[in-house]
Amino acid sequence: MKINCDMGESFGPWVKGNDVEVMPYIDQANIACGFHASDPLTMLSTVNLAVNGGVEIGAHPGYPDLLGFGRRDYHCSREELIATLLYQIGALDAICKSKSSRIQYVKPHGALYNKMMVSDDSLRAVMTAVASYEVGLPLVVMSTNRNDEVQALADQYDLPLIFEAFVDRAYDDDGLLVNRRHEGAVHDNLGRIELQVAEIVNDQAVTTLSGKKIPLRADTLCIHGDNPHSVEIARYIYELLDSYR
Amino acid sequence: MKINCDMGESFGPWVKGNDVEVMPYIDQANIACGFHASDPLTMLSTVNLAVNGGVEIGAHPGYPDLLGFGRRDYHCSREELIATLLYQIGALDAICKSKSSRIQYVKPHGALYNKMMVSDDSLRAVMTAVASYEVGLPLVVMSTNRNDEVQALADQYDLPLIFEAFVDRAYDDDGLLVNRRHEGAVHDNLGRIELQVAEIVNDQAVTTLSGKKIPLRADTLCIHGDNPHSVEIARYIYELLDSYR
Amino acid sequence: MKINCDMGESFGPWVKGNDVEVMPYIDQANIACGFHASDPLTMLSTVNLAVNGGVEIGAHPGYPDLLGFGRRDYHCSREELIATLLYQIGALDAICKSKSSRIQYVKPHGALYNKMMVSDDSLRAVMTAVASYEVGLPLVVMSTNRNDEVQALADQYDLPLIFEAFVDRAYDDDGLLVNRRHEGAVHDNLGRIELQVAEIVNDQAVTTLSGKKIPLRADTLCIHGDNPHSVEIARYIYELLDSYR
Amino acid sequence: MKINCDMGESFGPWVKGNDVEVMPYIDQANIACGFHASDPLTMLSTVNLAVNGGVEIGAHPGYPDLLGFGRRDYHCSREELIATLLYQIGALDAICKSKSSRIQYVKPHGALYNKMMVSDDSLRAVMTAVASYEVGLPLVVMSTNRNDEVQALADQYDLPLIFEAFVDRAYDDDGLLVNRRHEGAVHDNLGRIELQVAEIVNDQAVTTLSGKKIPLRADTLCIHGDNPHSVEIARYIYELLDSYR
Repeated sequence: MKINCDMGESFGPWVKGNDVEVMPYIDQANIACGFHASDPLTMLSTVNLAVNGGVEIGAHPGYPDLLGFGRRDYHCSREELIATLLYQIGALDAICKSKSSRIQYVKPHGALYNKMMVSDDSLRAVMTAVASYEVGLPLVVMSTNRNDEVQALADQYDLPLIFEAFVDRAYDDDGLLVNRRHEGAVHDNLGRIELQVAEIVNDQAVTTLSGKKIPLRADTLCIHGDNPHSVEIARYIYELLDSYR
Repeated sequence: MKINCDMGESFGPWVKGNDVEVMPYIDQANIACGFHASDPLTMLSTVNLAVNGGVEIGAHPGYPDLLGFGRRDYHCSREELIATLLYQIGALDAICKSKSSRIQYVKPHGALYNKMMVSDDSLRAVMTAVASYEVGLPLVVMSTNRNDEVQALADQYDLPLIFEAFVDRAYDDDGLLVNRRHEGAVHDNLGRIELQVAEIVNDQAVTTLSGKKIPLRADTLCIHGDNPHSVEIARYIYELLDSYR
Repeated sequence: MKINCDMGESFGPWVKGNDVEVMPYIDQANIACGFHASDPLTMLSTVNLAVNGGVEIGAHPGYPDLLGFGRRDYHCSREELIATLLYQIGALDAICKSKSSRIQYVKPHGALYNKMMVSDDSLRAVMTAVASYEVGLPLVVMSTNRNDEVQALADQYDLPLIFEAFVDRAYDDDGLLVNRRHEGAVHDNLGRIELQVAEIVNDQAVTTLSGKKIPLRADTLCIHGDNPHSVEIARYIYELLDSYR
Repeated sequence: MKINCDMGESFGPWVKGNDVEVMPYIDQANIACGFHASDPLTMLSTVNLAVNGGVEIGAHPGYPDLLGFGRRDYHCSREELIATLLYQIGALDAICKSKSSRIQYVKPHGALYNKMMVSDDSLRAVMTAVASYEVGLPLVVMSTNRNDEVQALADQYDLPLIFEAFVDRAYDDDGLLVNRRHEGAVHDNLGRIELQVAEIVNDQAVTTLSGKKIPLRADTLCIHGDNPHSVEIARYIYELLDSYR
């Protein structure tokens, strides 16, 4: 079980996140590629930070939407989406190469990530981009109740998958994240987070908001790096996982 | 002796150049990478065009300056320049990979190209970027009276060079291009171009504006693809070179 | 009856449209404001062209989407839309002021124009922006079968309206434009265009694709400036209208 | 004597500065216009903040350089500079108008501000833009040993000037700011700042780094809003000035 976190979300003179402080407690850094956040120089320094910390690097491409931080839906053709993904993936990988490293997976960002989890057209476009960039490069997908279908699709592209789960978000009985607007959607106490981590790690399961225990496959746990308690929570999860290792 | 030409200089809905018509008459396509021109989708279609035409692809990175088409000087640190180059190079290479191709060289664009030919700091930054992206990837440089120094520098980076000459521009006695504002700077008749091609190909030399014949090393000839006579001149040079092959 | 046409759609080094040639045949230039097309310098030269030609200037704001030319839907809050419109309107008006001119109306572009014609939320946001910029500044809207509702809404904002009709597009029996994908949607012969102009000007009516004659209010006729026959058609309509004046 | 401060320097999801906290202690808000920082929505909320706080609004246009925060030199023609300034000035003024306010002055930002203080070509372009936007709109310039020349130039454009001085920066004997790299360039204790404020306000003079007292004309004092002590210093200067009012 690994810990992944979005990194490199600054843009030029604007700083976002606590990359230096969070990096020691994660295994996988999802590094923004300049379309929804970041810029070449920020990417270079973030890659440096990850390489020096022995952290795996994943490309974290998003829609071309700095103002919306890649969180707004974006309309484009399948071809444009594929080109946009390849562009960002290659850009980050080049910066990794210059530091004798390579990207080790791709995790789409924000609205694109959400879109591919509900639209097979988008998911196929993402898979096409990743698989055509490099054979064997894994794609991170959200663990849901559709894991088997997503896996079947990935198999068509000969594409390895990494399933991710969330430690601070409540799940519903369908194995989907409870909408943030719903009460109880975000776990705000460490005890609840600890329980969820334990269930995911030990049982590949999670107790839903309604109290039901359902299966939840996870290869990596997503944490957030840009809120005031990020560092604290990152360290907490890190040490928690460490106790299982 | 090869023919290279800047390609893929459209941007979104704005078309520039005659890529489809010129592509059959060139050996090397310098494809813009989205910073001074082009965008992911334009890059994808231009790569497609080159791959289908059996034309080598070179990354053609420029300063981040769409409005100025990368022809204005741009001030940034060495680190930012390197990151900016790696970003563009990798972006294009990823799109090539998706078409089972690869970039085969790097040729900087516009103001960056001019800058690296007069500033060793810039040239070193460019060489660092290219050499750190991939061992053995060649850099295109302008053939000048400083070829030996440029070669010596490249040797430090273990970087292959491709020297380029111009067929439609007059040279001065120092082996430099005559400034465009100077009378006679641009050859406007095909006879003069034919003579220059013949000298470069047969003698690795050129007759300067003053009438002196000086040595001029060239591995590739640069032609321009965005003026009304581009196609005609491209075909002319192509057939001319063909007669030497 | 006036003729309006989109103008100033170039972007930096990329040219679009035949502004110089079309300007003599129009009454109103809808000038792009830098978000879907144009840039400050292009706006300045287009304003110059319009002022010198005695042509009215309208702000032609669009979604912030150069790559999609403002033709893609864009998701933003009401507040962001209003701010985005004010920004563009003021930017163009400032350039007009520097030439002792002023914008005389606002006509939203592309996807935004289409959106406001089907979404009252968008229409209200547009009206809020225009009315809060300057009392009495008119908004161009498409003449449809909802003219009365649109007028009632505009009255709430004390906002003058300019209704526009299209001369080269077929209308359906509901007074809406026939979708471009439908056969017969675009009039490709001048006779058909002449008939439509005559009906609109003389009868404030139009014969639909099905052959029915329906009322169509129009204060201005929209022509297109960026296709090969733009100039020819512009002159044709201009002279046609002239014969009615 | 007034206090001015750069405001509205956030960009989309990236926050910069302490606008809400600093606004109560300033008289004039120099609001960024989207080219070196800010965006339409940020401008709208910053204008709201200023209007509600009874603070004068000035347009704070900069070079189009988000990544460099407008602090890098930018090469463009006189015409492009003028168009770029008009664009930004009008954009902000439109947002002010929507809140029943208006911009009350223009203060160029960063590299553009520095450039116009050393290049009369740039200064003339700035003056042309401001004067052609609106008669009587003042321009903020740095108080230096060239005040008379700058005033003479402004008189040619019938342009009111606002001279600004800095409270936390040391001056040299020529009345210019000591370069930041020089020891003693920045006043880091409040006593030294208090002394400088007192001299400027009471004597229109300043004691230079070498200890000489020279004249210094100032209509407004510039403070900085984006460092950890901004609020504290802003309040301090505000209360200090208040004691002279």
